[in-house]
Amino acid sequence: MSRELRNIRIDLSYDGANYAGWQIQKNANTVEEEVRKALKANNIDFERLAASGRTDAGVHALNQTVNFLTNSAIPGERFVYVLNSKLPDDIKALSSREVEKSFHARYSAIGKYYCYYVDLNKISNPFGIKYSWKYPYKLDPEKIENASKFLSGKHDYRNFRSSGSSVKTTEREVYLIKPEFKDHYLKLNFIGNGFLYNMVRILTGTIVQYAAGQIDQERLEKVFTEENRKLAGPTAPPQGLFLEKVFYSEKELENAIIQVKSNIN
Amino acid sequence: MSRELRNIRIDLSYDGANYAGWQIQKNANTVEEEVRKALKANNIDFERLAASGRTDAGVHALNQTVNFLTNSAIPGERFVYVLNSKLPDDIKALSSREVEKSFHARYSAIGKYYCYYVDLNKISNPFGIKYSWKYPYKLDPEKIENASKFLSGKHDYRNFRSSGSSVKTTEREVYLIKPEFKDHYLKLNFIGNGFLYNMVRILTGTIVQYAAGQIDQERLEKVFTEENRKLAGPTAPPQGLFLEKVFYSEKELENAIIQVKSNIN
Repeated sequence: MSRELRNIRIDLSYDGANYAGWQIQKNANTVEEEVRKALKANNIDFERLAASGRTDAGVHALNQTVNFLTNSAIPGERFVYVLNSKLPDDIKALSSREVEKSFHARYSAIGKYYCYYVDLNKISNPFGIKYSWKYPYKLDPEKIENASKFLSGKHDYRNFRSSGSSVKTTEREVYLIKPEFKDHYLKLNFIGNGFLYNMVRILTGTIVQYAAGQIDQERLEKVFTEENRKLAGPTAPPQGLFLEKVFYSEKELENAIIQVKSNIN
Repeated sequence: MSRELRNIRIDLSYDGANYAGWQIQKNANTVEEEVRKALKANNIDFERLAASGRTDAGVHALNQTVNFLTNSAIPGERFVYVLNSKLPDDIKALSSREVEKSFHARYSAIGKYYCYYVDLNKISNPFGIKYSWKYPYKLDPEKIENASKFLSGKHDYRNFRSSGSSVKTTEREVYLIKPEFKDHYLKLNFIGNGFLYNMVRILTGTIVQYAAGQIDQERLEKVFTEENRKLAGPTAPPQGLFLEKVFYSEKELENAIIQVKSNIN
């Protein structure tokens, strides 16, 4: 690459139903591959394409942030159109801009906002199969509230991760777990400084099983004090999970917490 | 069938994305076939399975009504559970009951309610591909209102049908076409005593093209007076269309009209 490299940030939305997750892999269609193909189809040289984090197969993103370095002369704001002209209809760039050299979609992130949808309808919604966890059983709303409070905060979340990722520390701070009920759906909002691999899905599985009476109080209370993956609940299925937003400034993060706390849905 | 035949009514909801429509056909998966398979899997003998009307490939139903005759001793209200135990997740029975002998899902219907969703977002929603018509162009809201009024009423809708169905008369009464705007989506509500083949989709294509300036006032005004399919707009794609409800009593129909008219979305 001859010219000086510029750092381009893209905010993406995608329906994960037809993808084997973000990260490129052989013999499976991934979101990263589609983004790479769209850049190449526009003859854009790029390197160090990074996302804020992987999303697993079937997981959705309302707003995933990615960045890459390029010597392309295309103005930062134009990348959104250039990419969308080549991306498939279930992946769309929402915005694009040039950012400072130091920005990295993953390492610069200071927080993330995820939502998880549980379909509690007795007759599950035929339109929700790929966008929610079908769970037509009785949940105790008070227990959902209690578990949401108990499981948020600053903790060692070592029991809330699947193997397969190496991290320096398993301590995370979850600023907020907020349950909302609407039309027999349970929507769980999670905002934290970061989440371990599958952590949101395991938190969801724990809240749901506790509220269904399958995890008792005693077991829940040991979940941060004893190291044992089996103390937490199952990993909720991927299709109910949406990456809502990645935060790169304290202000964005604080605003989101205030908004979700006060949200009347 | 030995016992006396009972008439069972089922109200169904389905995501049409993965089906070649309602009506059974060779070499394609249809909703009717899934319903037949679910009945057979429960060892239920049945005959004269009928729906209120066909839905085309990719068209959805929030509430489609079907009926069939059976000598099964299963209580009417139980069919909903029996069917759902065998139906795929994207087709669900909502309710079931025994009805009088004379009831026929198609011939007893006195009206229908359809909705059509147009995604007007400049960057189309990646989650809406299978549930809306992506139309990221400028539409004049006043023209949408005017065309909706002009195209409703009691008319000969012969220019608003695709070939392929034989009907006695092409006169229909459309009680209401009500446009609503929300989050850069246009939702068109249609309630009528009946609709010709593809009529809702052609009405949608006409309203959208008129509002986009592609059909002028003079052409629109000729649409009921001259017989020429080309005076109306194109057939909007199937995936934006939802069958909302089929009416079998004046009261149901009137209530729906009042509700849609006064709806604040």
